[in-house]
Amino acid sequence: MIDVAIFGAGRIGKIHAGNLVLQAGARLKYVSDVNPQAAQELAAQHGAQVADIERALADPAVGAVLIASSTDTHADLILRAAAAGKAIFCEKPVDLSLERAQACARAVAEAKVTCMIGFQRRFDPTFDALKTRLAAGEIGDPEMLIVTSRDPAAPPASYIKSSGGIFKDMLIHDFDIFRWILADEAVSISATGSCLTDSAIAEAGDIDSAVVSIRTRRGRLCQINTSRRAAYGYDQRFEVLGSKGMLQAANHKPTEVLASTAQSVSQDKPEHFFLDRYRAAYAREIAHFLDAMVNRVPVRTTIEDGVKALQLAEAATLSWRENRTIELSK
Amino acid sequence: MIDVAIFGAGRIGKIHAGNLVLQAGARLKYVSDVNPQAAQELAAQHGAQVADIERALADPAVGAVLIASSTDTHADLILRAAAAGKAIFCEKPVDLSLERAQACARAVAEAKVTCMIGFQRRFDPTFDALKTRLAAGEIGDPEMLIVTSRDPAAPPASYIKSSGGIFKDMLIHDFDIFRWILADEAVSISATGSCLTDSAIAEAGDIDSAVVSIRTRRGRLCQINTSRRAAYGYDQRFEVLGSKGMLQAANHKPTEVLASTAQSVSQDKPEHFFLDRYRAAYAREIAHFLDAMVNRVPVRTTIEDGVKALQLAEAATLSWRENRTIELSK
Amino acid sequence: MIDVAIFGAGRIGKIHAGNLVLQAGARLKYVSDVNPQAAQELAAQHGAQVADIERALADPAVGAVLIASSTDTHADLILRAAAAGKAIFCEKPVDLSLERAQACARAVAEAKVTCMIGFQRRFDPTFDALKTRLAAGEIGDPEMLIVTSRDPAAPPASYIKSSGGIFKDMLIHDFDIFRWILADEAVSISATGSCLTDSAIAEAGDIDSAVVSIRTRRGRLCQINTSRRAAYGYDQRFEVLGSKGMLQAANHKPTEVLASTAQSVSQDKPEHFFLDRYRAAYAREIAHFLDAMVNRVPVRTTIEDGVKALQLAEAATLSWRENRTIELSK
Amino acid sequence: MIDVAIFGAGRIGKIHAGNLVLQAGARLKYVSDVNPQAAQELAAQHGAQVADIERALADPAVGAVLIASSTDTHADLILRAAAAGKAIFCEKPVDLSLERAQACARAVAEAKVTCMIGFQRRFDPTFDALKTRLAAGEIGDPEMLIVTSRDPAAPPASYIKSSGGIFKDMLIHDFDIFRWILADEAVSISATGSCLTDSAIAEAGDIDSAVVSIRTRRGRLCQINTSRRAAYGYDQRFEVLGSKGMLQAANHKPTEVLASTAQSVSQDKPEHFFLDRYRAAYAREIAHFLDAMVNRVPVRTTIEDGVKALQLAEAATLSWRENRTIELSK
Repeated sequence: MIDVAIFGAGRIGKIHAGNLVLQAGARLKYVSDVNPQAAQELAAQHGAQVADIERALADPAVGAVLIASSTDTHADLILRAAAAGKAIFCEKPVDLSLERAQACARAVAEAKVTCMIGFQRRFDPTFDALKTRLAAGEIGDPEMLIVTSRDPAAPPASYIKSSGGIFKDMLIHDFDIFRWILADEAVSISATGSCLTDSAIAEAGDIDSAVVSIRTRRGRLCQINTSRRAAYGYDQRFEVLGSKGMLQAANHKPTEVLASTAQSVSQDKPEHFFLDRYRAAYAREIAHFLDAMVNRVPVRTTIEDGVKALQLAEAATLSWRENRTIELSK
Repeated sequence: MIDVAIFGAGRIGKIHAGNLVLQAGARLKYVSDVNPQAAQELAAQHGAQVADIERALADPAVGAVLIASSTDTHADLILRAAAAGKAIFCEKPVDLSLERAQACARAVAEAKVTCMIGFQRRFDPTFDALKTRLAAGEIGDPEMLIVTSRDPAAPPASYIKSSGGIFKDMLIHDFDIFRWILADEAVSISATGSCLTDSAIAEAGDIDSAVVSIRTRRGRLCQINTSRRAAYGYDQRFEVLGSKGMLQAANHKPTEVLASTAQSVSQDKPEHFFLDRYRAAYAREIAHFLDAMVNRVPVRTTIEDGVKALQLAEAATLSWRENRTIELSK
Repeated sequence: MIDVAIFGAGRIGKIHAGNLVLQAGARLKYVSDVNPQAAQELAAQHGAQVADIERALADPAVGAVLIASSTDTHADLILRAAAAGKAIFCEKPVDLSLERAQACARAVAEAKVTCMIGFQRRFDPTFDALKTRLAAGEIGDPEMLIVTSRDPAAPPASYIKSSGGIFKDMLIHDFDIFRWILADEAVSISATGSCLTDSAIAEAGDIDSAVVSIRTRRGRLCQINTSRRAAYGYDQRFEVLGSKGMLQAANHKPTEVLASTAQSVSQDKPEHFFLDRYRAAYAREIAHFLDAMVNRVPVRTTIEDGVKALQLAEAATLSWRENRTIELSK
Repeated sequence: MIDVAIFGAGRIGKIHAGNLVLQAGARLKYVSDVNPQAAQELAAQHGAQVADIERALADPAVGAVLIASSTDTHADLILRAAAAGKAIFCEKPVDLSLERAQACARAVAEAKVTCMIGFQRRFDPTFDALKTRLAAGEIGDPEMLIVTSRDPAAPPASYIKSSGGIFKDMLIHDFDIFRWILADEAVSISATGSCLTDSAIAEAGDIDSAVVSIRTRRGRLCQINTSRRAAYGYDQRFEVLGSKGMLQAANHKPTEVLASTAQSVSQDKPEHFFLDRYRAAYAREIAHFLDAMVNRVPVRTTIEDGVKALQLAEAATLSWRENRTIELSK
């Protein structure tokens, strides 16, 4: 039985806790949050204790920690958990600073602890099945990847200001998808974008619409398109062209009702909220984390993956700002 | 907090137990099964106790029972639970004998206990959304219902012999869908069928392929088609034509991957196994049962619904055997 | 070069004429119509001559006639054209009277002339491809056929009165599809229906909504559902369940535009007008007719097919009127 | 009645001739081709005469010419036809040289003749309907355009050598789609690509896989992805994200058959051959050309459109070769 401490009892913390307690072989022991009431409620629901981080890390019975607190605390908590020898699951991103993220990766490597970053999309049933079929050779060698990644609506400008910018905030997931699906690394990246939905975003120094082109070591090509606003909902698709065909991951729908009227033939819009869209993915990533601990196998999304996605986000930001193609060191 | 006893710790019993423990306000107290080991394992998993039926029904703390044992025990357990004043959730069918089912309905009515029959399809997200939109008038008045209901493969002939025949065993669900969707009652029914997949089914006196036509009091029409074998999996669709359009409920797929190759453009086959297809429906029906108890509102699928579906199954069987249209008393 | 005379210069006559002149090896020589202006216009458009039927049939150069005049003239024109030794293409139905249709079939057989009935649906690219794949064994032996056949809106009651009733007027096509797709003959048929769209139809002694069940010699099953009104347009689908899978023929759409908005995700409604839906089918049936003449091969849709579809329509009408299953002589 | 001469009796010439003769108000008078037999056959089929270009242009009765000869003859024939005062329909591209294309545009402007370039995709029913709905405001202001444009298989390397390169040969159509759909002009363009299908293409100095990003005056974004090889066929899609939703143009399929077996649920692959995919578009563009002549309205695809698409192709080629973003003069 693995005892687990969770740091962060907010929206995503609750989801991770709920998924954790359904795992045979795991038990939620401690909940920690800057908001005592949130910590208390989550602990009560699952028969766990409220504890501060020090106490949780000091308990030798605790085998793993789930870091679901705010982004600016991730790096510090990773360093402390690694020092305490705990297995770590940390929400993305590792940090908005590449240097700090790299420091975390080094600390994790030195401590030889498991550290998994919550790129939950790799555990989405559709995306995961596509990757498995691609790896099995169903469409031959992958040659081109087209990623569509659009949010239903832009967050407030106050969020934008501390978000790290669209490339670190939104495309970080897509850069991880790119590396995972093509199993290759970028050699050049070119990004451009505009502010088309809300001038407050431009005033915050950011854009809301972006397109990125990537070329890889093996000559493969990737295009990503992103917008902060899609009136029809959360749009999460990608397609891979290979030498023998194409695999496409389409959106998930809440129901399979089709309505035919004098006006139109219509189906459901995509799952609107990311927690609905990736409900299964969140459950599967926690199961994977515990499974990897128990069976001592590598996790699918390492802290190095977190660092590399951040490098791509920084390069894309530079490309956009300077309006030029960026060559990436190999 | 409602204490619940479950009778039956087999495949479907485990599913109901798992869904029950996720409900706030409910607790699994007792598990009973003719197989002591099965009862023990399920009880241990959820911190419940093994108990025989008498003891469970005698405990005044028990507010509800879930009957998930074999079909031939349903009627007896309903009668005993009603006599004990417990709220009852019972898997379909109430009984293979219409008389016994009617006796149960009378007992439930006299005891004034909640009794819900597990027609889980009414809680399927797609079917439920269709019904809600139909009731809201999206396609005007319903005029015609076409139901497609096919199993992936026929069960062994030994099962067929004690199944009550295809109309009671398979179409019982479809007859309930018919009554629920059209909100109307049959006045005539005509059924025909064949044995096309396995001659052992014919030898058991049954058929494996059937078509049914129903006409309702208000002149609405319903067609049901069924087969024990669909090579591509579990096929569960229906469509309603109304005065202003059509609503269709399509199959659910495991993933949204689309593959385009030199051979074909293909998508996933339908969810193959009924426990996968109706996973969400099973969870939602248990939540509904508890919600109805707590809020003292009627359940969506009453024991009268169970009786009426059985009446239609008997009439369809007679129509098939005698090759004639059966008029139903109003 | 085959010289052809066309009888009937109305809507469908114009379509057949336009398809004819695109065929290498055929020439439109005469146009005949009770409306002289219609005949003149069609003749002028294609460089043909206006002629009365006698003159056209008397011209030994004429190898074939296309009968596209009103239904009540079909039988007489078939008899005269057969007597004149011409190859015949005749719009469906042969006649509303089974006896007269049978007399035509005998005359055609005695005259040993080619006679093709315009069941154009057998030439629809989707339906034809489905039949070819079925015949190639892609889904094993066919077991069940479900036909959906709905018009966008009911014709005026005046038309209904002389239509022969819904089974001869609308389902005649579906009965032909049934025989063609299953390659089998009915042994029993059961029909029921209602008048749900327009009480004038009931006053005319007819129904607007009908369902039919058929059982074949080989035990195969067929269900047909029909309505005179589908708010979303012309609905023409069928599906075949076989021992190894299912083939479905879906509706055709005018364009492949998909629109996603805050309200819905929608695609085009089905082709609304039967002349659009079956545009390709009309062209392909005329090509087939000429090809059969030139290559002296049997036509796909014979006058016997016309007679047999009519027999099913009569049996269905009787079943509906008497509310009983009709056994068909073999 | 407009008399028309066609220059070029090859594959595309035959298609244009067939579409022309179906137009009321137009007549094919002359056919010219370097291959006398091809010219003779096409002329015979439609009752036209074989004539050399001089004679055709000298005939004052000729109102329009269709240029369907090889690309290297287009510019010369445009200049001669403009000088002769004929209306001109010319297959794309105007010329592989931007200077020559611009000279043609000037000559056409000076001669004040109608000149339409055969960007047939603007007349595809799906693309055209999407544009009409976009222009009607269905999804608000367009913000982002994603174009997918893939051929089934690469042509021989010998063709590649004289093709002008992938950007002029394949993407010329996509650059026109970009300008038409967004109704905007590019201010910067960035292209990259690889040779992934056939090393002979690299040896010919070209690539077979390319991605392009474009930013417009109004800040709109466009991504194009192209490959010379798509194992599943000819892939021609695009989607527009607007402020109020998205419009997508999907591929056309030969039939609407859906097959469900133990292996998969599959539909038809896309129309494989460009002449099938754009059959309707070719017919509609000729009708548009004649209609524009008769009604003296502007054509939808002018020679200026041809020049501007070529400018984008040149800029994309430069961007790819020098691996940098190209700013376009406004």
